[in-house]
Amino acid sequence: MTDTPETQAALREMLDRAPEPDADAIAAARARNGQLTKPPGALGRLEELAIWYAGWRADPRPRIAKPQALVFAGNHGVVARGVSAFPAEVTVQMVANFEAGGAAINQLCKAAGADLSVHAIDLDRPTADFTQGPAMSEADLMEAIAIGWEAVDPGADLLITGEMGIGNTTSAAAIAHALFGGTAGDWTGRGTGVDDAGLALKTTVVAEALVANPTAASDPLEALRCLGGRELAAMAGAIAHARVLRIPVVLDGFICTAAAATLDRAVPGALDHAVAGHLSAEHAHAPMLAALGKTPILSLDMRLGEGTGAALAIQILKGALVCHSGMASFAEAGVAAGQP
Amino acid sequence: MTDTPETQAALREMLDRAPEPDADAIAAARARNGQLTKPPGALGRLEELAIWYAGWRADPRPRIAKPQALVFAGNHGVVARGVSAFPAEVTVQMVANFEAGGAAINQLCKAAGADLSVHAIDLDRPTADFTQGPAMSEADLMEAIAIGWEAVDPGADLLITGEMGIGNTTSAAAIAHALFGGTAGDWTGRGTGVDDAGLALKTTVVAEALVANPTAASDPLEALRCLGGRELAAMAGAIAHARVLRIPVVLDGFICTAAAATLDRAVPGALDHAVAGHLSAEHAHAPMLAALGKTPILSLDMRLGEGTGAALAIQILKGALVCHSGMASFAEAGVAAGQP
Repeated sequence: MTDTPETQAALREMLDRAPEPDADAIAAARARNGQLTKPPGALGRLEELAIWYAGWRADPRPRIAKPQALVFAGNHGVVARGVSAFPAEVTVQMVANFEAGGAAINQLCKAAGADLSVHAIDLDRPTADFTQGPAMSEADLMEAIAIGWEAVDPGADLLITGEMGIGNTTSAAAIAHALFGGTAGDWTGRGTGVDDAGLALKTTVVAEALVANPTAASDPLEALRCLGGRELAAMAGAIAHARVLRIPVVLDGFICTAAAATLDRAVPGALDHAVAGHLSAEHAHAPMLAALGKTPILSLDMRLGEGTGAALAIQILKGALVCHSGMASFAEAGVAAGQP
Repeated sequence: MTDTPETQAALREMLDRAPEPDADAIAAARARNGQLTKPPGALGRLEELAIWYAGWRADPRPRIAKPQALVFAGNHGVVARGVSAFPAEVTVQMVANFEAGGAAINQLCKAAGADLSVHAIDLDRPTADFTQGPAMSEADLMEAIAIGWEAVDPGADLLITGEMGIGNTTSAAAIAHALFGGTAGDWTGRGTGVDDAGLALKTTVVAEALVANPTAASDPLEALRCLGGRELAAMAGAIAHARVLRIPVVLDGFICTAAAATLDRAVPGALDHAVAGHLSAEHAHAPMLAALGKTPILSLDMRLGEGTGAALAIQILKGALVCHSGMASFAEAGVAAGQP
């Protein structure tokens, strides 16, 4: 069992020391891929995903048997500024919906055979309005990171993280602005569906957030503390722990990727164990993924969060692995290989 | 039970008279979609797919319980011209691999819960080389169409069709050239992986095919007869029967789409029950889908055929339906709806 990091510095150090994927498994998986009964490269992206996964699991012929889905919920002080089309009460209402099995993520996790658990974090204690100063204290940040870290099942062979938190696209936009520069408008979108006036207000709020939190632009984990929410910090904690445990991760949309990006910017390579599950309809997701060097598996104009895009992408990754690990080789099947 | 069409004219007439999707089910599915616990439109393409499927199944809250996968195999006289990187014997060897469960399509069908059957059609009797005249007689064409037509399980609630046939990207390119015009080069690609010289030869062969079969450009079913193969005709037969039975279809890649396109060009609306499962890496697949007005669900650089792209896309369609039919409404979950 890995100790839970208690400080930002400890988290960085654990990510710095995290193990690399297994080079022998990668080589063996690549050799196996070349012998399967198909023309070279004919399974496209599936081949690359299978080899990547084999490396992280240190198994040249793995399957996905125990995927885990973690959904974290938090409330945001910045909602008082009117940045969302939905009232803050919806966070707790949706948590009840997750617990009752009625949300989209419940259906998609069931279909993917993923074990889903929901972690509502201090919903009655919203983060501070980050246009006035940091959203969280250092203690609040590390506590939320610890919730995510400790929620990871060390026996899982795949992890997805999702979120619920009215106002959290504003938080994610502010983090992206701090990490990747540009203008507030570059990173601010309509979220659950604000109108033009709402979008203009949200953009102003994101710009104000960076003015009110001058350390955020120079320190990625400070960006998570000052501009994040508890559910974003918990996702970062879970994804970091998965990196240490060599559990592959499928990232969800804009908010999940913003939380994960703080790790990548804090410690290069911290997201090498993660693929982008989908491209969100939230327009700033594409440049964020590009900045991280991630190509999304799916692109279906989804923008729900909860982990739904990642849950759907589990099926593609499973498909890659059943082909890689289940197909016959040319020799086994007695099939003539093509011209070299 | 629907009679099997015995002539091209009979097939046309059946497609002409085929039932439309159920308007009441579409309206009810659309109303249900608007009440589910998510912001309007947040499930993106999944919402549209669920409503489309509901209409064809005449059920406002359906699920996919019995998907069927049909793989047809045929041999092509044009292979004597040297258009493939693989020898013609590979068709029969791969059929044995399908039957033994060793191919990619076996693994993906198992993962998707699809019932797979393989139909090898006269492998010892290749079609005629279509650079010299028609690939098939009218009788050969209708016999192959009948094999596909009769292979459809009327109790299936989703159909995918796949193919195996060394040389069949050349056949598909020739059909696309006949149906959609342009130049032979617009529609000819590397298939399983021919080199530059092979591609140049293939392009020449496709151009010669149209010269040798002057009726193909003016009659889509003649294009299927003159330029197709038995496995393409069987796919067209299965897809046509599914249209008559209101069974939704997920199209596979370049070859499957070329076969299906002959129906669409013969009878407008004949592919309204079909979605494009994926965008193949074969470059001419994109313009063919555009000409048919189909947006692919997946884009993963796959180019294997066998139905593999469609089989993977079943999972996305299943995901759309489990969300649509399994989620709670705002009222059921006690969640406040957003601003209008």
